[in-house]
Amino acid sequence: MESFTVSALGYGAASLTTLSLFPQALKTVRSGDTSAISLRMYGLFTLGVLAWAVYGLLRADGPVIAANLITLVPASVVLERKLRALLEGRR
Amino acid sequence: MESFTVSALGYGAASLTTLSLFPQALKTVRSGDTSAISLRMYGLFTLGVLAWAVYGLLRADGPVIAANLITLVPASVVLERKLRALLEGRR
Repeated sequence: MESFTVSALGYGAASLTTLSLFPQALKTVRSGDTSAISLRMYGLFTLGVLAWAVYGLLRADGPVIAANLITLVPASVVLERKLRALLEGRR
Repeated sequence: MESFTVSALGYGAASLTTLSLFPQALKTVRSGDTSAISLRMYGLFTLGVLAWAVYGLLRADGPVIAANLITLVPASVVLERKLRALLEGRR
């Protein structure tokens, strides 16, 4: 399998998983509904994405840094809205 | 920075992002509530995780294969429940 195809698949996979968080962040901000969203998921996931970004920095790995810093934005938005809802006594 | 610490950080990050999907899948299966969950997120995310697994196979990269095959399970569960809810006319 030529390495170009494999690299393209890798960048494609990275784009899909990175961009996938944006529709959820948009839906959460618009609807304000976080009832079905798991706090533990977004707590663990946001921490994990932050750890991946630091990992990428320590290894000077551009794509890992970029993908995870981008993902950190929508993940933090959803986490913040979920925390806010819980603090306001909503589910 | 010794490479052991960096590797440990990488495996830590992989564990966090991989395991983070399980609390969401559990909450979704238990509550049956998918109203706040974005179909586009889980469609893109599940496709991306599948692409990462194939990428790992093509590069014979064990951790990438393992992390993404594991993540594929809870991601598919949430996607299936969201699709089922939409087909049944629920949000």
